[in-house]
Amino acid sequence: MLEYTTENLTADEVARLRAVYEPLTQSVRELIDATIRTEVDAESVSEAKAAIDAATARLRSNQLDGSFGIRFGSDGDQMPWGNAVIGLRNPTAPPLKVEQAPDGSVFADFYLGAAYEGPPGHVHGGVAALILDHVLGEAASSAEKPRLTGTITMRYLRTTPLGPLRVEARIDRIEGYKTYAVGHIADADGHTVEAEGVFIQPRWARG
Amino acid sequence: MLEYTTENLTADEVARLRAVYEPLTQSVRELIDATIRTEVDAESVSEAKAAIDAATARLRSNQLDGSFGIRFGSDGDQMPWGNAVIGLRNPTAPPLKVEQAPDGSVFADFYLGAAYEGPPGHVHGGVAALILDHVLGEAASSAEKPRLTGTITMRYLRTTPLGPLRVEARIDRIEGYKTYAVGHIADADGHTVEAEGVFIQPRWARG
Repeated sequence: MLEYTTENLTADEVARLRAVYEPLTQSVRELIDATIRTEVDAESVSEAKAAIDAATARLRSNQLDGSFGIRFGSDGDQMPWGNAVIGLRNPTAPPLKVEQAPDGSVFADFYLGAAYEGPPGHVHGGVAALILDHVLGEAASSAEKPRLTGTITMRYLRTTPLGPLRVEARIDRIEGYKTYAVGHIADADGHTVEAEGVFIQPRWARG
Repeated sequence: MLEYTTENLTADEVARLRAVYEPLTQSVRELIDATIRTEVDAESVSEAKAAIDAATARLRSNQLDGSFGIRFGSDGDQMPWGNAVIGLRNPTAPPLKVEQAPDGSVFADFYLGAAYEGPPGHVHGGVAALILDHVLGEAASSAEKPRLTGTITMRYLRTTPLGPLRVEARIDRIEGYKTYAVGHIADADGHTVEAEGVFIQPRWARG
């Protein structure tokens, strides 16, 4: 059984926390990109590293024992702020902002830069899989009924260029505890990767 | 066609560059973890952010136009230093150090912390897919014959806890340009995710 932390945070308090942490996370995202692309000399790298280590020590002076987990506001809103794909406190997340279309399908427009590279100038195939796993899972889930991936298959049509991209997913059909979802990633020229998966309502979440 | 940059870097020069950039990347990995887990007050966050922004500006004062790509040393060694899974200059990579066993299979022991979370305390299913895609691809490839993912299927046996993990992969069979690979991620109690994929030698790499 996975533990979800419930806190009685008001909407105002959630907004305040977001305003504190979101700019920090965005700054670290910029630093990640700069770390990969920099060509400054060894002395500059060393001085930047010292400043970063000092910032890390300050942030670590009071920190959670483990990972962020998922917290809830008092209105029941989820705060998956450490999540590897959508977490607003996770600098490794692009992050995706997954939206729901009127027909129940979900989508996100997002940008992948140097940190997501596999083949030169192109998205790592595994990063495409990371994003499709998440977004098909969101299509298959609802706030009351979380679903986890059972199996998922990715089909790579061509390499995906780094840059602006879109992901879309929808439920294909539901059979008991199994929800079948399909989706794709696309660039301006069309689909680059397609996916289909079976998502399962965990036993502990069955009402 | 993907562009690979060839440089005439000697082994000594590659070692020097590694010594400059690997510690910086590791420091940024620590900062990522601290950013997710910190509970310091807003003033401390703001001051840490200012220090980070200054370090980023310094690193960006001389940088590559685009992503890192893959470079080669004069001995033909690949330097996929920006890679999202194994890149020694990519702070979002765990990074994996993939080793080859005597029987030709590949494996890596690695650690996933707060940055790789999906379900609370557990690895994001998509992160497992990212790692399996990469390692099955390495099993299917050789330095002379790169292979890209055609299709890959992940089967989730149970949720994978954050912490120390192992991934293994091997070639199952080869049929013309198609190489079939299988693999898994395991924790101390056994397999958590299994994968099988078809990897294809790109047209431009066929001799």
